[in-house]
Amino acid sequence: MDKIKVRTDLIIESLEASGDTIHMNELQHTEELVHGMKINQVIINDEHGREIGKRAGTYVTIDTSAVNDHDHEQLLKIQKQIAIEIDKLLTKNQITEDSVGMIVGLGNDNVTPDSLGPNVIEQVFVTKHLFELHPESIDPKGFRPVCAMAPGVMGMTGIETAEIIDSVIDRIKPDFVIVVDALAAKSIKRVNTTIQLSDAGINPGSGVGNKRKELSKATLDIPVVTIGIPTVVDAVTITSETIDMIIKHIGHSLKNNRPSNRLVTSATPNKVDFSEQDVPDENVVRDLFGNIGLMSVEEKERLIFEVLTPQGLNMMVTPKEVDTNIVDLSHIVARGINLALHKNIN
Amino acid sequence: MDKIKVRTDLIIESLEASGDTIHMNELQHTEELVHGMKINQVIINDEHGREIGKRAGTYVTIDTSAVNDHDHEQLLKIQKQIAIEIDKLLTKNQITEDSVGMIVGLGNDNVTPDSLGPNVIEQVFVTKHLFELHPESIDPKGFRPVCAMAPGVMGMTGIETAEIIDSVIDRIKPDFVIVVDALAAKSIKRVNTTIQLSDAGINPGSGVGNKRKELSKATLDIPVVTIGIPTVVDAVTITSETIDMIIKHIGHSLKNNRPSNRLVTSATPNKVDFSEQDVPDENVVRDLFGNIGLMSVEEKERLIFEVLTPQGLNMMVTPKEVDTNIVDLSHIVARGINLALHKNIN
Amino acid sequence: MDKIKVRTDLIIESLEASGDTIHMNELQHTEELVHGMKINQVIINDEHGREIGKRAGTYVTIDTSAVNDHDHEQLLKIQKQIAIEIDKLLTKNQITEDSVGMIVGLGNDNVTPDSLGPNVIEQVFVTKHLFELHPESIDPKGFRPVCAMAPGVMGMTGIETAEIIDSVIDRIKPDFVIVVDALAAKSIKRVNTTIQLSDAGINPGSGVGNKRKELSKATLDIPVVTIGIPTVVDAVTITSETIDMIIKHIGHSLKNNRPSNRLVTSATPNKVDFSEQDVPDENVVRDLFGNIGLMSVEEKERLIFEVLTPQGLNMMVTPKEVDTNIVDLSHIVARGINLALHKNIN
Amino acid sequence: MDKIKVRTDLIIESLEASGDTIHMNELQHTEELVHGMKINQVIINDEHGREIGKRAGTYVTIDTSAVNDHDHEQLLKIQKQIAIEIDKLLTKNQITEDSVGMIVGLGNDNVTPDSLGPNVIEQVFVTKHLFELHPESIDPKGFRPVCAMAPGVMGMTGIETAEIIDSVIDRIKPDFVIVVDALAAKSIKRVNTTIQLSDAGINPGSGVGNKRKELSKATLDIPVVTIGIPTVVDAVTITSETIDMIIKHIGHSLKNNRPSNRLVTSATPNKVDFSEQDVPDENVVRDLFGNIGLMSVEEKERLIFEVLTPQGLNMMVTPKEVDTNIVDLSHIVARGINLALHKNIN
Repeated sequence: MDKIKVRTDLIIESLEASGDTIHMNELQHTEELVHGMKINQVIINDEHGREIGKRAGTYVTIDTSAVNDHDHEQLLKIQKQIAIEIDKLLTKNQITEDSVGMIVGLGNDNVTPDSLGPNVIEQVFVTKHLFELHPESIDPKGFRPVCAMAPGVMGMTGIETAEIIDSVIDRIKPDFVIVVDALAAKSIKRVNTTIQLSDAGINPGSGVGNKRKELSKATLDIPVVTIGIPTVVDAVTITSETIDMIIKHIGHSLKNNRPSNRLVTSATPNKVDFSEQDVPDENVVRDLFGNIGLMSVEEKERLIFEVLTPQGLNMMVTPKEVDTNIVDLSHIVARGINLALHKNIN
Repeated sequence: MDKIKVRTDLIIESLEASGDTIHMNELQHTEELVHGMKINQVIINDEHGREIGKRAGTYVTIDTSAVNDHDHEQLLKIQKQIAIEIDKLLTKNQITEDSVGMIVGLGNDNVTPDSLGPNVIEQVFVTKHLFELHPESIDPKGFRPVCAMAPGVMGMTGIETAEIIDSVIDRIKPDFVIVVDALAAKSIKRVNTTIQLSDAGINPGSGVGNKRKELSKATLDIPVVTIGIPTVVDAVTITSETIDMIIKHIGHSLKNNRPSNRLVTSATPNKVDFSEQDVPDENVVRDLFGNIGLMSVEEKERLIFEVLTPQGLNMMVTPKEVDTNIVDLSHIVARGINLALHKNIN
Repeated sequence: MDKIKVRTDLIIESLEASGDTIHMNELQHTEELVHGMKINQVIINDEHGREIGKRAGTYVTIDTSAVNDHDHEQLLKIQKQIAIEIDKLLTKNQITEDSVGMIVGLGNDNVTPDSLGPNVIEQVFVTKHLFELHPESIDPKGFRPVCAMAPGVMGMTGIETAEIIDSVIDRIKPDFVIVVDALAAKSIKRVNTTIQLSDAGINPGSGVGNKRKELSKATLDIPVVTIGIPTVVDAVTITSETIDMIIKHIGHSLKNNRPSNRLVTSATPNKVDFSEQDVPDENVVRDLFGNIGLMSVEEKERLIFEVLTPQGLNMMVTPKEVDTNIVDLSHIVARGINLALHKNIN
Repeated sequence: MDKIKVRTDLIIESLEASGDTIHMNELQHTEELVHGMKINQVIINDEHGREIGKRAGTYVTIDTSAVNDHDHEQLLKIQKQIAIEIDKLLTKNQITEDSVGMIVGLGNDNVTPDSLGPNVIEQVFVTKHLFELHPESIDPKGFRPVCAMAPGVMGMTGIETAEIIDSVIDRIKPDFVIVVDALAAKSIKRVNTTIQLSDAGINPGSGVGNKRKELSKATLDIPVVTIGIPTVVDAVTITSETIDMIIKHIGHSLKNNRPSNRLVTSATPNKVDFSEQDVPDENVVRDLFGNIGLMSVEEKERLIFEVLTPQGLNMMVTPKEVDTNIVDLSHIVARGINLALHKNIN
């Protein structure tokens, strides 16, 4: 049962899923549009966190279609925005410009959709060894000591990833950690489009159903900023979400009095952000989609899970262009980190 | 409209889609189980080919879960079976043991799920240059002249792939061609599990909606054996197929008198090959899935296509383990080709 | 015997090797320093070509340490210079701005130091298919039809590379060809530092001792611009060249009256471009290096070849940083080609 | 000065270099020929270790040309021999069959000739997490708990590699460590041919001139088995060694009364293992190679170093076939480790 509960790495999906429990207006919540990116910030306190099964903290979400669109100009703007949001989270956590940072890239370098973290590590600018061994080679005004590691995944190391990270942090004693990871989305819309930054901590491997030790301020004693981007989604999600979209699509068409031929309207040629208001009334939904249309998201996902899993078909999938997606994503995250941590970089 | 018609690279899917038009018993059709693989052979004549939009020829389908299961022992059996089926197709086309073969690997080496063809080319044993330049180094009894090429994709070469292949064949004059390509499936079940061999020819790039020049005996004047494996599937297919499976799953449960709680039965714990007989009667389907449940596959896919496409969500996806999948698939295809073409290879 | 004759892909090395036969002042020869690059241009006529075993044509050599130094600012200047030199060679050969170009990347994508050509092909901007299939998508004022291919190497295709290229050119009928290849140097100094452009044609594979069919205006009937960069050097060359450098180094020190301790002077701390004038007189050379010091380059190389080859030690080597070298080299060549062929590219 | 002293990662080279100080017959030394591999074992005590600048311990050297020859049958034998030698070193250090092992792969995954260690880590069979989380899935009779890590290099992590390893060992507390690393050879003959196993410990990065913290039983308190294979060599070494070989080659020819034409004999067509006995007498050497011929290896290398370094030419190089070399080497080392640590593996 708990295998199929709505589990997600994205706060925005957790909040959507628990729409009944928490109303957005109870939360400290802002939303703005910056250079074509939608930027959401929400602060989850301990109480709300317990209700939705998330750790307390600040969560920032940057939404952009630039990676899927291969829009290189927009990608430049995103990396700057990532730098700004990292900077805000570090400042909120009293991190000063000369404090020592460690970047941790989670994931498996040999599984392309899971290789975001290790790829970022290859591109971040590390300086801690220079400060120690060649202090004359680096300007402490524009740079700070930064180190990095890609601890691998348990399937390749045989060790809990959190153990490796924790033991190295214990030894190296950085002042803060930035953790980068590829996530699983509960929506096809969010694959490669949502960048979540947070200071609430992370469970390495939690996104694919493993319970591992936590990496957070509570466990490590230093601020932990996480940067996560969904790169995979499962077949249950794709189906459940599409059924919802069909219902809203038709509701939207009916409301807008478009002639429809049997079920299908003459199509909505442009992208529409469907909302709950687009769900038609119960009789229409039952007519269109029967009892399944009336199920909650959770019930529907459980049903689809029960159908697909015995067939071995509830697979995690990633878009066909996974190779260039990871190149672009790792580049903007690494650049964002470099810009945030070193004021004098280019 | 025609963008969304049921288009597939697999004969088995074409036949399923046109269930009403052609009955399997009209066709020369055999099915056997060999070492855990289901092997289907069907001969399509010109008339049937026109009806289902496929070229005439022999189509063999090997079904196996060995790649998804990482079952290395089973993979060894599959590569032998691929060799047997290639051999049969060559023999049927009067290809003798000393005739000259050319292997063509279609696809894009930089897009992992599309790199099956180029990966196979790296692993096939080429000998044509040895026969010409160092005949003393090779035994003509156990080996034949084989050459190979990976022509790339039009997006990288700016040239129709069929033009490149045709011009090299014109010059090199092999006696037969084996073409390897990654396909798009119309069923999640078939991704990385179905290996189709045929002598009916291929349109490079046809699987992703491009109409290109044909590679076939008709156009090249020599036998063309194709080996295709679906490695991607689109979101429309996943959703449409899953809706069908839910309907059959429930029908199957009802027929088997399993108690059901609301809609969902206590689940079918084992893999079931659902069939048309599992579809419950119309009233039940309408009850469960409304009018959408009563739509034909084609109507349903058109509807889903109309909903997903304007949202930019009708993406082609591939399982997360794409890297090892392609390694395993290219290995068994290359080994199968090597075993078929060179009798004395280990 | 002829296996060890001084064979080189670089005109500048051929001319050095045959210093006695041709004097530079007999040739049309210019040398300039542009933005820190040394640019040499020499025009070889048929007569001179016969004497030094090279095809007639214009040869341009750009010398730079930017790749070995990872000097990214300088790399930007080199790619512009490559564009300028390509443009000059095309103009000299009456190629107009709307003529159709084909880029050919020679070499083996799976052997890093030999993968320059295929890597360039992945980065050139191809447009021929757009002109034909989507003419509305491309501005014929700023762009021209360009296509590209990476034909592979004979060891992987079983076909003479020149045959593949020739047959595709025959079919596609471009107006000119640009061929990119990794070369073997006859000097460690030139590895990754010398970029040779020429309109004299090329023999695919000639650099590693294979005699293959020629790609040139004479054989293809269209202008052929080649871009070659040495990425490997053999152990014979390293040793022979170093012995020469030791002799000149000591001669240079003696001339400059530096105190020497036994043989070795207190070192030349800065880079010196040794010349023939640095060779000390025969008695000194004999004293230092015995009869071997008096041998000609050719004799010395033959001797070293005879010693190393039976031991299996005359290997081709490449600097340890081969991976980043090829990334940088392929990037500047691809960008240079793009800038030369498409006037409106960024 | 000390930059150019004879520094090597291979005990066999250290002993050769200090031929005057230690005579092999003072040492516990055995040499045997097993399946075409030459296997050398030498035990260095503290006193000898101080004299040659090496740590005390057992050093085993396996010599084979199988990698350079691509001899796959021989490679199978080597991996078994590696397993045998690991087993002996573990037994000598009182490691029992159920003790917990950690494999550490040193080096940089993005620099092919330095990627031996990380490549091995990808192929070793890790089981520690299975013993802890799924003990039912693994047979403790045939398998032991094994974990693995690839800590990266200081240039990418900004942290001393030994610090990372030490902190993880501190936490995980394995009973022994196996460290795999690519080395620098002081002889072209040894590149990709010599596999050194030892229990004397290692300094990460020592092979390329960096002094780092030591990984040894003394520092980690558990046995450390190292497996090192030279994959690079510098230009100074190539030249110095070749000059020596020329001298011995000629001495060998003179001794064998072969007619010689000028300096060069009619060549030694077969591979000869030259020895010190092949050095001709001083007058002959002076005649051939002048004063340079009479220099010691160390003097000669210092001279060549002084000549090449200011020119930026004392590069580390690797054979052109570096990609397949690393594939083959990492495969035999990983298989050797797997066979040694898990009795029931295939």
